[in-house]
Amino acid sequence: MQKISDYSLIVESAFKNIRFIPAEPSGLYDPAVYALGAGGKQLRPSLLLMTADSFGGEKGVENAIHPALGIETFHNFTLLHDDVMDNSDTRRGRPTVHVRWDVNTAILSGDAMLTLATREIAFVPDTYLRRVLDVFNSMALEVYEGQRFDMDFEEMSEIDEEAYIEMIRRKTGALLGASAEIGAIVGGASGKDCVLMKEFGNMLGIAFQIQDDWLDTFGDAATFGKPIGGDILNDKKTYLWVQAMKGESGDVEALSAAMELKGDVKIRTVTHLYEKMNLSEKCRKAVGHYSSKALTALKKTSLPEDRKESFRLLVEKLTGRKK
Amino acid sequence: MQKISDYSLIVESAFKNIRFIPAEPSGLYDPAVYALGAGGKQLRPSLLLMTADSFGGEKGVENAIHPALGIETFHNFTLLHDDVMDNSDTRRGRPTVHVRWDVNTAILSGDAMLTLATREIAFVPDTYLRRVLDVFNSMALEVYEGQRFDMDFEEMSEIDEEAYIEMIRRKTGALLGASAEIGAIVGGASGKDCVLMKEFGNMLGIAFQIQDDWLDTFGDAATFGKPIGGDILNDKKTYLWVQAMKGESGDVEALSAAMELKGDVKIRTVTHLYEKMNLSEKCRKAVGHYSSKALTALKKTSLPEDRKESFRLLVEKLTGRKK
Repeated sequence: MQKISDYSLIVESAFKNIRFIPAEPSGLYDPAVYALGAGGKQLRPSLLLMTADSFGGEKGVENAIHPALGIETFHNFTLLHDDVMDNSDTRRGRPTVHVRWDVNTAILSGDAMLTLATREIAFVPDTYLRRVLDVFNSMALEVYEGQRFDMDFEEMSEIDEEAYIEMIRRKTGALLGASAEIGAIVGGASGKDCVLMKEFGNMLGIAFQIQDDWLDTFGDAATFGKPIGGDILNDKKTYLWVQAMKGESGDVEALSAAMELKGDVKIRTVTHLYEKMNLSEKCRKAVGHYSSKALTALKKTSLPEDRKESFRLLVEKLTGRKK
Repeated sequence: MQKISDYSLIVESAFKNIRFIPAEPSGLYDPAVYALGAGGKQLRPSLLLMTADSFGGEKGVENAIHPALGIETFHNFTLLHDDVMDNSDTRRGRPTVHVRWDVNTAILSGDAMLTLATREIAFVPDTYLRRVLDVFNSMALEVYEGQRFDMDFEEMSEIDEEAYIEMIRRKTGALLGASAEIGAIVGGASGKDCVLMKEFGNMLGIAFQIQDDWLDTFGDAATFGKPIGGDILNDKKTYLWVQAMKGESGDVEALSAAMELKGDVKIRTVTHLYEKMNLSEKCRKAVGHYSSKALTALKKTSLPEDRKESFRLLVEKLTGRKK
């Protein structure tokens, strides 16, 4: 069993069979169950399990089940609070928690999810506890820092590429990095391999986010799962925007003007400008660049070739994905 | 050194000298520093240190410094998110974080405080790590559960005393219980003493909260630190209200009518009804009841008499307090 989708099945079954969220008071825990039940790719826990299996086999997988639940719970906690902060009404086709319940419930149940996540993360053999916990807590702070940068970017009219990459490394890369690193730790990997797998996840996360930025403008609505052009409509600072704004001054002016438009016209006009600036190609190159970095780290690990191959397939799947 | 105020000095000095909150990004961490810098009684970390010292002497105190910072950070995280949920503008005489900054900042910086708290809590010798972490995470869930019950109570027109006591045990007692228990653990206390100290803290917390309810109506504005009658004005479900509502039907009707009033007249009328129902005396008895339970647990510990005496003085101080 080596494909990421196989591990995703283990994650699903673990969520069904391990009751780690109390039942009462339902006003606190029902929203957490709801937020976790929305489906989603379960990419992060699957990566954690795949890494644990690759280094530690059956024993590794056994050690990794609870941290996998913890990582997915943490991820959904951040989405829940992000949705409140962004005032988003839907997530994966369903009303968000603060819409279905209310904002106060979303805040409090989110807090509970963070503690529940920490508790599952800590459910590892004693010898790994401190390292796993340190990785988890440092990652969590990086994720908040990335979110803070993202919020600060909203007010800025110019963002340099380096700052943008560092923002998505923390907001998206850190969680994939910690998933791979925790999987490696509980799989009994060497210290060197743990660091390399963290780097693999970090870089994969950056490539993944740039690809996501690209899909939001150039993707196919049928497979992407949300309406195309949402980032443009909401003036989101994406990799495309960062690139466009450092282009020639004529382009920058045209783009600034286009962003004053509304609705479909805005989406079409900005997309057209992005095409003219050849940004689709620039994205493709950046995704390739960070994917290569991920693969370079992977190559340096002591994993056998067939195991490396599974991770390579994962990189291909994520960075060539249509949804 | 055995007085609670002595330990409070250690806490203050630890907050000054241990830099456990990163500097950047300042938009994430400045609000956390601000929230922690508001002063307050530092009762919980002081209790943690006092317990660690009582069981483990100098070594116990050394082990307890970081968890003490963690407990106080956790407490202030809950206040920060509670203030958002209650839409409170001031705390300890200063604007709350969501007023000074904004709601999104308060949510995100609060999340960071919970992770920072967990990280400090975990800063204990390996042999205590799992137990301390388990106590902390279970306590955190109880605190959210207590807050949830408190929110649910707002919508209820009748609450029985048992449910009310269980709410304040979780919302207030659990944190004092965990402070004492973690102090006992890192002080090397026996399993039995750890459980007894937890019980001591839980019961002390209940007595403390009932006393707080009493002070909000019958206290002295000069020493209480906030305006008298706030609970009445905001229709807060307090121990006084719970008692009043199970009184004779004539009283219940008079009280319901009085609660429709506004401003100072409402405060004066409801207070007068509470006096007529002899609720001040009922509170005094309840505070005595739960204080006794705390002292009974304390008595059963293996602590030497002079140490027990320090905890007895603490109970007296907290339950006879004027502020």
